[in-house]
Amino acid sequence: MMVVISYDVSTETADGKKRLRKVAKACESHAQRVQNSVFEADLDYSSFMKLKGELLKIMNKDTDSMRFYYLGNHWQRKVEHFGIKKGYNPEGTIIV
Amino acid sequence: MMVVISYDVSTETADGKKRLRKVAKACESHAQRVQNSVFEADLDYSSFMKLKGELLKIMNKDTDSMRFYYLGNHWQRKVEHFGIKKGYNPEGTIIV
Repeated sequence: MMVVISYDVSTETADGKKRLRKVAKACESHAQRVQNSVFEADLDYSSFMKLKGELLKIMNKDTDSMRFYYLGNHWQRKVEHFGIKKGYNPEGTIIV
Repeated sequence: MMVVISYDVSTETADGKKRLRKVAKACESHAQRVQNSVFEADLDYSSFMKLKGELLKIMNKDTDSMRFYYLGNHWQRKVEHFGIKKGYNPEGTIIV
């Protein structure tokens, strides 16, 4: 199933930047980073639940916001992209 | 139908900040801002197509990225939220 993960964190603080890097790192082998704070994970249910548990441990629930959008298995026609496509490395730096 | 709109723009430049404000403004009466750069629009097809046209005119396709996720009509169970819920005003400032 495809799940879109959007993570709203202030990167104006060092701690916020660190949490975004950690989220990107946790997503490294399980999900694709499609925007600076948006990831897409195409996983089976149990793998996703494990990833979700990791992400919820990383985020600061008092300051950050995380949303999961469940697109299901037939997601290819449910996604549309415009503009540039960035490649991100797991450390969160944009690879141009 | 519910559409999630995620807009990746560098807000380190004045122009980027301006475009994000314009996107937020265009979404003002049609969609809800749920994160800094994520909006949810629950609209009929023609209203959405109009909004989409406006958004694509605002974005800079050479530097920004915009993704649309079509969640359909039965979207309530497809969205999950963790952490804070921010209220945003149309100018993009966080209302705490």
